[in-house]
Amino acid sequence: MAQARFGGTDWIDLSTGINRVAFSLPSLPMQAWTALPTEAATARLLAAAGAAYGSQAPMLALPGVQAAIQMIPRLSAPARARILSPTYDEHAATLRAAGWQVDEVTALSALEDADLAVVVNPNNPDGRSYQREELLQLAARVGRLVVDESFADARPDLSLADKAGRERLIVLRSFGKFYGLAGVRLGFVLGSDSDIAALSEMAGPWPVSGPAIAIGEAALADRSWAEATVARLRAETPRLDALAQSKGWKLLGGTELFRLYDTPDAAAAREGLARHRIWTRMFACSNHWLRLGLPGPAAEWDRLAKALRD
Amino acid sequence: MAQARFGGTDWIDLSTGINRVAFSLPSLPMQAWTALPTEAATARLLAAAGAAYGSQAPMLALPGVQAAIQMIPRLSAPARARILSPTYDEHAATLRAAGWQVDEVTALSALEDADLAVVVNPNNPDGRSYQREELLQLAARVGRLVVDESFADARPDLSLADKAGRERLIVLRSFGKFYGLAGVRLGFVLGSDSDIAALSEMAGPWPVSGPAIAIGEAALADRSWAEATVARLRAETPRLDALAQSKGWKLLGGTELFRLYDTPDAAAAREGLARHRIWTRMFACSNHWLRLGLPGPAAEWDRLAKALRD
Repeated sequence: MAQARFGGTDWIDLSTGINRVAFSLPSLPMQAWTALPTEAATARLLAAAGAAYGSQAPMLALPGVQAAIQMIPRLSAPARARILSPTYDEHAATLRAAGWQVDEVTALSALEDADLAVVVNPNNPDGRSYQREELLQLAARVGRLVVDESFADARPDLSLADKAGRERLIVLRSFGKFYGLAGVRLGFVLGSDSDIAALSEMAGPWPVSGPAIAIGEAALADRSWAEATVARLRAETPRLDALAQSKGWKLLGGTELFRLYDTPDAAAAREGLARHRIWTRMFACSNHWLRLGLPGPAAEWDRLAKALRD
Repeated sequence: MAQARFGGTDWIDLSTGINRVAFSLPSLPMQAWTALPTEAATARLLAAAGAAYGSQAPMLALPGVQAAIQMIPRLSAPARARILSPTYDEHAATLRAAGWQVDEVTALSALEDADLAVVVNPNNPDGRSYQREELLQLAARVGRLVVDESFADARPDLSLADKAGRERLIVLRSFGKFYGLAGVRLGFVLGSDSDIAALSEMAGPWPVSGPAIAIGEAALADRSWAEATVARLRAETPRLDALAQSKGWKLLGGTELFRLYDTPDAAAAREGLARHRIWTRMFACSNHWLRLGLPGPAAEWDRLAKALRD
């Protein structure tokens, strides 16, 4: 869309929180493409995910966290859901489509007494984060707590993955964002035996592709790549914040994969970057918010710096 | 499982109907892996699928026909479904799980008056096939007709893909079987505007991986590969039937991708082939039925011939 309007083909897409320095693809056995995924391959993937996330909870691999978000509203009869907002729109959208009454609240305490509560931790787009203890207390006061940890790879201190397995707690983990491989379509749900069994029946056999299983296993097992990536991202977020500040934008928050800035006019700011073939993200809830993912290679940083000087 | 029991690693899996001579993978742009699939890429895939299937109907790409089978029971409130049987188990399983009363019937006419009727055409595992006119007449007499054309690539004369788009008719097309790429997870639902919109909402954004979209587009656009493959399969099915006949097995039916034989003792027959590291498929409904997919390269045919002589 932006491409059609501004022309050019070498766009830098900073409109998502997908890592722009992707995990290098392992060589894939031909069988990953030709055969139906086996239970053995899926078990190896889940073992690697369990080790990476520090969890022994029942777990289901799906074609992206989005696939889990589509199914969670069907785990129980529609009732009253509350979502800590603003956040990723699809939680509210899928719950409403399934007949839930959804209230979007802005304080963690306002989630109490909901039949289903959703917290994205750390949150997208503003990076707000909640401590494990707060969330565990909340879990005891709601019918079911869904913690979407799509952006938690760099923040294991926040993760409840190790507490998943108990009743009425669901933890979502994205693969594609941190590993920079969103096209692979892979994500995980961690939960109680009964919830994972129900979600598994909804998903049916072979929900995830053979290449996704093989790549996921290799990537999640490579802890040194993960550690180096966390270190790189932590070193680079201040650089992005400094560039934004030089433009007069104020940091509202963020994670290691994206930053949210308060700008005088988000539409104008986005358009200014688009003229340099850099695409960023605005939000319906504010005329001032602009979210930028971190650039990847040096040339991307250079173009962004130049665009922000213009 | 068979591997654990009989040992060896170079098994020939003839237990499925997946083509063992796969479409050669095109080179994949890195973006297919790294970025979320775009609407433009999905539109190109659907255009290629529409051309290959001879259909202009509304269409949705999913991670396999199985994903469609999971969702179809939710298109309307559970009522009475009838399935032309025996056939692929998952149709009955998903309908029952969603609360439908399911009757498995053995004659096409017995499907009439069902709120939802399922016909696999040509049928798995026995290859029974139904003419377009019969199915169109049936469509007028049931609440909704689902025609699963997972094995119809070699039989365009049977396909109702060109009639999809009208109300209350759903056509399913598999990608992985005929193209020998089941691990890719790709299939299509063709149907009315409202059914495809409802299924699309159930699936949510990005259900199919970037590589699946790119490979599917390339494969479905390569009509000469498809024609050559149909010709090869047609030439080879008599060869498989002759091998089976030499063993005293009687052909019960089949498609270009698999054959169903009547054997004196299916368990013994399967075990005999397993000793040669060839895996085949038995069915709960018969002690005599054994289904074999077609071998691929010459060495696979040689081993099967030797195994059947033993």
